[in-house]
Amino acid sequence: QYLKDESFNNKSYEKAEKNIVENRKWYDIIKINGYIQARYNGLFETNPDLAVEQADKNWGKDKGISFRRIRVKLSGWLHPKVYMYVQGDFASEFSLKDAYGDFYADNEKKLWLRVGQSKVPYGFENMQSSQHRIVLDRNDPFNSALKNERDMMAVAYYTPVKFRKVYDYLKRNNLKHSGNYGAFGLGVFNGQTANTPDENDEMHIVARTSYPLMLPNKQVFEFILQAYSGNYVVTNTSEGVKTTIINNEGHEELIDANGAEFEDSRIGAGVIWYPQPFGLQAEYNIGRGPEYDPSTNTIKVQDLHGGYIMAMGKIDYREHSFFPFIRYQFYDGGKKFELDARSYTVDDWEIGLEWQPMDAMEVTAMYVIADRRYEDGELPENEESGNLLRLQMQLNF
Amino acid sequence: QYLKDESFNNKSYEKAEKNIVENRKWYDIIKINGYIQARYNGLFETNPDLAVEQADKNWGKDKGISFRRIRVKLSGWLHPKVYMYVQGDFASEFSLKDAYGDFYADNEKKLWLRVGQSKVPYGFENMQSSQHRIVLDRNDPFNSALKNERDMMAVAYYTPVKFRKVYDYLKRNNLKHSGNYGAFGLGVFNGQTANTPDENDEMHIVARTSYPLMLPNKQVFEFILQAYSGNYVVTNTSEGVKTTIINNEGHEELIDANGAEFEDSRIGAGVIWYPQPFGLQAEYNIGRGPEYDPSTNTIKVQDLHGGYIMAMGKIDYREHSFFPFIRYQFYDGGKKFELDARSYTVDDWEIGLEWQPMDAMEVTAMYVIADRRYEDGELPENEESGNLLRLQMQLNF
Amino acid sequence: QYLKDESFNNKSYEKAEKNIVENRKWYDIIKINGYIQARYNGLFETNPDLAVEQADKNWGKDKGISFRRIRVKLSGWLHPKVYMYVQGDFASEFSLKDAYGDFYADNEKKLWLRVGQSKVPYGFENMQSSQHRIVLDRNDPFNSALKNERDMMAVAYYTPVKFRKVYDYLKRNNLKHSGNYGAFGLGVFNGQTANTPDENDEMHIVARTSYPLMLPNKQVFEFILQAYSGNYVVTNTSEGVKTTIINNEGHEELIDANGAEFEDSRIGAGVIWYPQPFGLQAEYNIGRGPEYDPSTNTIKVQDLHGGYIMAMGKIDYREHSFFPFIRYQFYDGGKKFELDARSYTVDDWEIGLEWQPMDAMEVTAMYVIADRRYEDGELPENEESGNLLRLQMQLNF
Repeated sequence: QYLKDESFNNKSYEKAEKNIVENRKWYDIIKINGYIQARYNGLFETNPDLAVEQADKNWGKDKGISFRRIRVKLSGWLHPKVYMYVQGDFASEFSLKDAYGDFYADNEKKLWLRVGQSKVPYGFENMQSSQHRIVLDRNDPFNSALKNERDMMAVAYYTPVKFRKVYDYLKRNNLKHSGNYGAFGLGVFNGQTANTPDENDEMHIVARTSYPLMLPNKQVFEFILQAYSGNYVVTNTSEGVKTTIINNEGHEELIDANGAEFEDSRIGAGVIWYPQPFGLQAEYNIGRGPEYDPSTNTIKVQDLHGGYIMAMGKIDYREHSFFPFIRYQFYDGGKKFELDARSYTVDDWEIGLEWQPMDAMEVTAMYVIADRRYEDGELPENEESGNLLRLQMQLNF
Repeated sequence: QYLKDESFNNKSYEKAEKNIVENRKWYDIIKINGYIQARYNGLFETNPDLAVEQADKNWGKDKGISFRRIRVKLSGWLHPKVYMYVQGDFASEFSLKDAYGDFYADNEKKLWLRVGQSKVPYGFENMQSSQHRIVLDRNDPFNSALKNERDMMAVAYYTPVKFRKVYDYLKRNNLKHSGNYGAFGLGVFNGQTANTPDENDEMHIVARTSYPLMLPNKQVFEFILQAYSGNYVVTNTSEGVKTTIINNEGHEELIDANGAEFEDSRIGAGVIWYPQPFGLQAEYNIGRGPEYDPSTNTIKVQDLHGGYIMAMGKIDYREHSFFPFIRYQFYDGGKKFELDARSYTVDDWEIGLEWQPMDAMEVTAMYVIADRRYEDGELPENEESGNLLRLQMQLNF
Repeated sequence: QYLKDESFNNKSYEKAEKNIVENRKWYDIIKINGYIQARYNGLFETNPDLAVEQADKNWGKDKGISFRRIRVKLSGWLHPKVYMYVQGDFASEFSLKDAYGDFYADNEKKLWLRVGQSKVPYGFENMQSSQHRIVLDRNDPFNSALKNERDMMAVAYYTPVKFRKVYDYLKRNNLKHSGNYGAFGLGVFNGQTANTPDENDEMHIVARTSYPLMLPNKQVFEFILQAYSGNYVVTNTSEGVKTTIINNEGHEELIDANGAEFEDSRIGAGVIWYPQPFGLQAEYNIGRGPEYDPSTNTIKVQDLHGGYIMAMGKIDYREHSFFPFIRYQFYDGGKKFELDARSYTVDDWEIGLEWQPMDAMEVTAMYVIADRRYEDGELPENEESGNLLRLQMQLNF
């Protein structure tokens, strides 16, 4: 017996593993799952003109019950060192979310290269799945960096084994982690956001580090630092919106903003105290990017900054989990991918409760107190404030 | 042995069940299936100008073989009391059909709440799946109530166990049942039909009851009564089409019909004698709804009514099943979701045969004798009649 | 024991098989798999104006990394004699590729009828899956016959058992076969290419024969002959492009080319020497079809011809396979489905290497030396030549 084990050298192990791999059925290789989110944004609405396009296109003027997300994912290990992930949204029209491969360099799964469309590692809440996020929509200060959070990219990630164990602990205990996007990440992406072809010959560059600290009493703190830089080409403008460039002769010249290139750089920090049972989450970022200027009807590179702070709890009662939360967010800057790199000032409070009666289901109610200025070439003077109660039901499959 | 069974109390049963549930593989939770329908509408066509938009957009002027439906469904029990169902159509572009959750109140699955996009419980043939329907397309008198039969909704259903047993008998014996939409159903829906955002702050309300009667000789009769009511906003109009409202000063005023709200209410009854081997199926409804008026080029709330009667058989020979049928339908009213709430008079005969050589496959041939008036702002005087032979092949997977 | 086997007559065998079939789980019936192709067309590009629309819409002017294909397939035996296959592309918007059923006449699976949208059996490389093709894009001389290679069709195929064994050998040994499209094939198709409704009452007709010859030393040669014929209706034209017809009075008349019908017929031959380790592949076809004529700004039926020859190798090293290749292609004729049946002269060299480090993954690098004239009503004088390096990464699941 002992000899046999001895003889089970690496070669025969590899053969055995290969055999297992080759005899796998398709449903052992590929896993299909997903989730559905239905919403109602019409309760106690004080201002139907307040709309928040990026968060939920069915917010603003009661539009009945609507689907926010119907997600189906195909994922699996195609090879001991190759993982693939494809996710689409079927809520109205089909829209591709993720399609990437992870290529691992080692057997401990410490170092890997991710190639394809995936989330850009910028912002904790951006990376956290909407399936797990407590608040209904992502915060503006970080989400303004990346429409749909994604881009076509090649990013290298590295996670030491002891960090991965903390991430696994967070996941196992339903603590609303972002998933493993590396303790260190470094890569390039097209820069025009998801499902949009590149518009210049340059790539954006992104770097990120996360340090998850577990105390002896199992309380976990995560510290995050990240930055990206590149040039963004504005492609969605109103008639007549211009921008100023320095032309070949060294003079200022006013040209059409559509197709013009703008600096697009940010640096952000975050800290998360995971809720056992009390938690805090805060992120803040500063940067420069294209933003509409109503006084001149032009798009200019301007400073931007913003952040949020959230206190949340996790209360388990029998099979049920409850996540009460309160969040304040502010943002002053542009949204490069909206009309005319729309100019924003955001000053919002959100207070609510997520209830998980079982793994398969969540219900969230959230009261919003919003004050938002959002201006573009078509609405150069536009500030709306209002309150409403928003409801979401989620099914996980 | 007896003691052990005794000791198997409710608590440990729940634990065991939970264990089974938690160890389930994704493919034990989710089931993927569907069907494909290909058609040919070009044989013996006497009038290429006769087109029936809602039934089949490839009817009228020979357009070769075409797909009518390519359906893929994901469904499963996410929890002993939570069922989910998602269905999409991939025949040309992607189109969402169903996406709902069923939340059961009891273990006998008598009472449940359905939330999401699903079929509105109005009309037996509307609820019957196209996978099981004998006739190629649904009848106009009931289908004119609901484009794609569906809406975003919350409906409570109740089915006594003894009724469910009859429904199961009908299903098991391939008798073309509609599926279990409750012996009693009561709920609300957005009212603008599937994949369309709501346009007013009101919900439509719907109620339905079905009584399946099984005689000692196993012959089954089902009696159905249903009604819905709400206000529908017309959003698809030709240039210049108006409607008359009573304005704030109490006077009549002619305004643009686009965006105007109209009464939309119906009540209908149905009876089905399931084919063992001979059957009959009849439905009739009356109501009021928006309808184009060619004489004034306006849309008005008008009376509508219509129904159909079908005689059908079920003949089993070895593995094969044959369903011969003859149907007469008439309808006089509008189709609120078509251009200008198009005005219709329908007077059609259909005679044909469905052949099921195996579970996986069906072939249907159907001869149509149609006489249809359909008028809108662009074609204010339009009546077409004609005959043709229509063929369908269906694969079930 | 012996008696029992004796008693296992045909009747009970059928029953047993039926039982197995009926107790199959959905995942034993349906198999889901697919592949992803990501590309980068921006290296060492000498002429950004050189674009090759049919091959890759992200070729020409650096557009960053892009997806060429994200394919998901559902396939399976629904019955011992019925096979179904559905394939969609999810690379940006959803697009239906295949949806067909195969109905077998015998148990040896020699003769079958394929009905639905599938590849038209014209051109070896057209039928070969993009998952298996070495060169990044299909050759113009054959692919110009069929956009997306597919159409709605009904085709009968016949493959003797001994031929099928050769096809199986080619597949098992990863020799880049086209798959079994019959030793003989005969059928009809709509004629307007995939996902496009038919425009006339006629079907195209297609016939094909393939003879796979295996020598005693296992070298395999395949000889292919095929032809199709029909009338194609041009539906994609620039303003003002005309065509000449003979009108009812027998005179020539200049009419709008849009909607006009043109002869569309081809005959082609091919020979493949499968790479063990050295191989050759060549195809050539001639025919007549609609083609834009810049001198008169009309579309005319003109002669077309073209072909390609490729030398390739297959080198296995441990788990890895390498496929070096060099291909020359030329084409002189129209592309009926492009704008104004665009007129082409193609004169391209491609040299590259496909590397398969494992079953799940492929990387291809290919240097292209292209010289292409492509002219239509909007660009009546247009010739572009240039070189570039193209990269592709593929994941198979």
